[in-house]
Amino acid sequence: MVHCIHFFKIGYTVYNNIKWGENMKIVIIGGDAAGMSAAMQVSRKKPEYDVVVLEKTDLYSYAQCGLPYYIGDEIKEEQQLVARPREVFIEKFGIDARIFHEVKQVDVKEKCVKGINLETNEPFEESYDKLLIASGASPIALPLDGVDLGLIFNVKTLHDATNIREVMQNQAVQTVGIIGGGYIGLEVAENLKRIGKDVHIFQRSGQLAGIFDPDFAELIAKEAKDQGVHVHFHANVKEFKGTEIVNTVVTDEDEYPVDAVIMSTGIKPNTEFLEDTGIELFGNGAVKVNPYMETNIEDVYAAGDAATQFNRIKQRDDYIPLGTNANKQGRIAGLSLIGQPKPFRGIVGTSILQFFSLHLGKTGLSETDAKKLSIPYQAVSIETTDVAHYYPTHEKLHIKLLYHQDTHQLLGGQLIGKKGVDKRTDVLATALYHEMTIEELLDLDLSYAPPFNSVWDPLQQTARRVK
Amino acid sequence: MVHCIHFFKIGYTVYNNIKWGENMKIVIIGGDAAGMSAAMQVSRKKPEYDVVVLEKTDLYSYAQCGLPYYIGDEIKEEQQLVARPREVFIEKFGIDARIFHEVKQVDVKEKCVKGINLETNEPFEESYDKLLIASGASPIALPLDGVDLGLIFNVKTLHDATNIREVMQNQAVQTVGIIGGGYIGLEVAENLKRIGKDVHIFQRSGQLAGIFDPDFAELIAKEAKDQGVHVHFHANVKEFKGTEIVNTVVTDEDEYPVDAVIMSTGIKPNTEFLEDTGIELFGNGAVKVNPYMETNIEDVYAAGDAATQFNRIKQRDDYIPLGTNANKQGRIAGLSLIGQPKPFRGIVGTSILQFFSLHLGKTGLSETDAKKLSIPYQAVSIETTDVAHYYPTHEKLHIKLLYHQDTHQLLGGQLIGKKGVDKRTDVLATALYHEMTIEELLDLDLSYAPPFNSVWDPLQQTARRVK
Repeated sequence: MVHCIHFFKIGYTVYNNIKWGENMKIVIIGGDAAGMSAAMQVSRKKPEYDVVVLEKTDLYSYAQCGLPYYIGDEIKEEQQLVARPREVFIEKFGIDARIFHEVKQVDVKEKCVKGINLETNEPFEESYDKLLIASGASPIALPLDGVDLGLIFNVKTLHDATNIREVMQNQAVQTVGIIGGGYIGLEVAENLKRIGKDVHIFQRSGQLAGIFDPDFAELIAKEAKDQGVHVHFHANVKEFKGTEIVNTVVTDEDEYPVDAVIMSTGIKPNTEFLEDTGIELFGNGAVKVNPYMETNIEDVYAAGDAATQFNRIKQRDDYIPLGTNANKQGRIAGLSLIGQPKPFRGIVGTSILQFFSLHLGKTGLSETDAKKLSIPYQAVSIETTDVAHYYPTHEKLHIKLLYHQDTHQLLGGQLIGKKGVDKRTDVLATALYHEMTIEELLDLDLSYAPPFNSVWDPLQQTARRVK
Repeated sequence: MVHCIHFFKIGYTVYNNIKWGENMKIVIIGGDAAGMSAAMQVSRKKPEYDVVVLEKTDLYSYAQCGLPYYIGDEIKEEQQLVARPREVFIEKFGIDARIFHEVKQVDVKEKCVKGINLETNEPFEESYDKLLIASGASPIALPLDGVDLGLIFNVKTLHDATNIREVMQNQAVQTVGIIGGGYIGLEVAENLKRIGKDVHIFQRSGQLAGIFDPDFAELIAKEAKDQGVHVHFHANVKEFKGTEIVNTVVTDEDEYPVDAVIMSTGIKPNTEFLEDTGIELFGNGAVKVNPYMETNIEDVYAAGDAATQFNRIKQRDDYIPLGTNANKQGRIAGLSLIGQPKPFRGIVGTSILQFFSLHLGKTGLSETDAKKLSIPYQAVSIETTDVAHYYPTHEKLHIKLLYHQDTHQLLGGQLIGKKGVDKRTDVLATALYHEMTIEELLDLDLSYAPPFNSVWDPLQQTARRVK
């Protein structure tokens, strides 16, 4: 067992009772969106601080949300997805950005972290004045027979995507099973169809995109069918068969020949190494943080997929691991780390997805969500057009808005159409942030010219349906 | 002189001291967006009321903003622009929707309006319990020699557009001069180019689209040039020459042969008939209204292009005659007319324009506006992309945000790009409505997936530039 030692480096001194403005050593676990957003805040505003980033893989800050499009050859080069090469962090910003450093333990009393250098297999330890946990999340591994067979992939890291892309270039790989029909599963389905694969989605429940209500999910199922994606609902995957590489997906009811499998059944925070630290965790293992990204332990912060997000609509902690949230929380954590704290007022639960010709937007709560939370709500739906009905480019737009039964405060919205979805999702997200009532939407001064809108925006048209 | 008489009709009684819930006679001057929005509110919620609409032309409620696109053959049929035919108002909604009724005088003491039936040339008069002035606006007639020549058009009414469209189908009409390079002038320019005309814009000032700051207007001028539109800046039009039909535009400096001319030099409220009524008017003649669309005279309301709009950013009355504002104010006026008043919290000054491949969005104040109002401001600009820079469909997006120097409250924004402009304009309009600071934009939970956005929305990228 290595003991925590405070290393002395040239230009660096260890302090007890650190005061703001003095030098300081910041250790960040994880080199992706949240961790590097924080690191950059520190580097830019307190260049005199020492920042050590301990990244388990050899990958730094890249666009995870772009992976499906890299698989689908919409994005051609791996390098396009890399926000900033590690060398830039080191050379330009003076960040000690290490790779293959897996943290195994945090000692919050001694203020040090311990782990293994996966390249050398040597243990390491690193003292800190302030620690940021930005260790991200990993795919939930299903305990299924055959899950370790070849050509069964996750879609979490850039390496995953590069591997899938390579395999898919083999024309012999024709039929691909996707386990899980959430956002990632749907994006991958579209991208695999784009490069000519035969795609089967195996979905445990009776609808795709579980964050939508069943009536809206039906539009998604219809699009899947129209685009030739085979969706198997109520398909409980039990096992994968094959010899070395997978060749069959086995469900409760049937067997399906496949040439490859993509797992997209959800992710969980990487926080196992925090056991017994006393750092308070959320139900799923995410680190609980306050608006300043502080944990319950002094000088320990968390952000991104490893942390909780405060949901303004639910008025409680939530877990919605998205790049947007990770970047916001990373920035806030960075400001806290340098002693310039600003509160993050929380998320409202916004997301968007392209699925072939459809755009799917969601913000706030669905009916399913509201029921779970026992929030008394009313829902109002509309089928309208995204721009003036007389303008030739108009397309159908479906909107459902939820509002509180008593106060009429907006609770959320779902939007599906071929265009104009992202705009209304974002206006609604902004309205939700400000706790507007559904009637107040009618006051908004939204832009109108026939190529862009109707004189009453579709959100307002929906609000006008409220009696 | 006809005296005001209260007419008795079957099913209608004249009341003194009207109480809510009793029958009532509502007279509305003007049958377009504001007037008919109000009329529909009344008809739907108080079907027992008598609603008389006095429309000067033979046109009811149509999509004025669609006219340039009808000229450019993007919209094929005149009927597509008619929101609801007059017959529907009469037959389905029981609205006494008259045509060719020009109001000449309002007697606020006797509570009646007097005018001329332009079809019969007979005088008419109509008593009211409550009156709504929704008489709209008309092009400002420039007192230029030759302005009455043939083939010189305004673009205000559906008839104007139909006439222009017909004339433009004549291939001999090749060169068209547009006087005024504001929104309408630019939209018409694009649409005339679409149908193959040679287009010259004569602009008095040194920039197009005066609501934009000069740096942004330069992008518009460049687009005009790239698209082959001839723009004559600092062109002071003095005279039109021709014999019966126009053939020359004469400016201070030169003469330009033309086959037709479109006038787009602004509009003014139609309120001449209110002289000596004691109804308070704004500087330009618009009727001053409060948040309930009440004028200073009891039982007299105004809405739409004939009225002022309260500007939340300027915190004062303004005049921004747009269809969006007319519809909102018409609805609010309707609610007041039926005794269910709701306040309208005002506009922020949002508009949008398509100009060939460019989308131009503006909301709140420009630098020019802020200077005029002596508001101490800071501006921050960015050139970014509308979606993730690695996603293949990304396009350049220019954003300028203004915020108050002391409070950092957002004051306005200008946005120009090939796409993604309308979305950010509307999010910003919503943020302006809520008096957000520029830093608070960073908290907004805006939707992100690579086809739709960057992980930090361009508005947030701009806000992050603030030191």
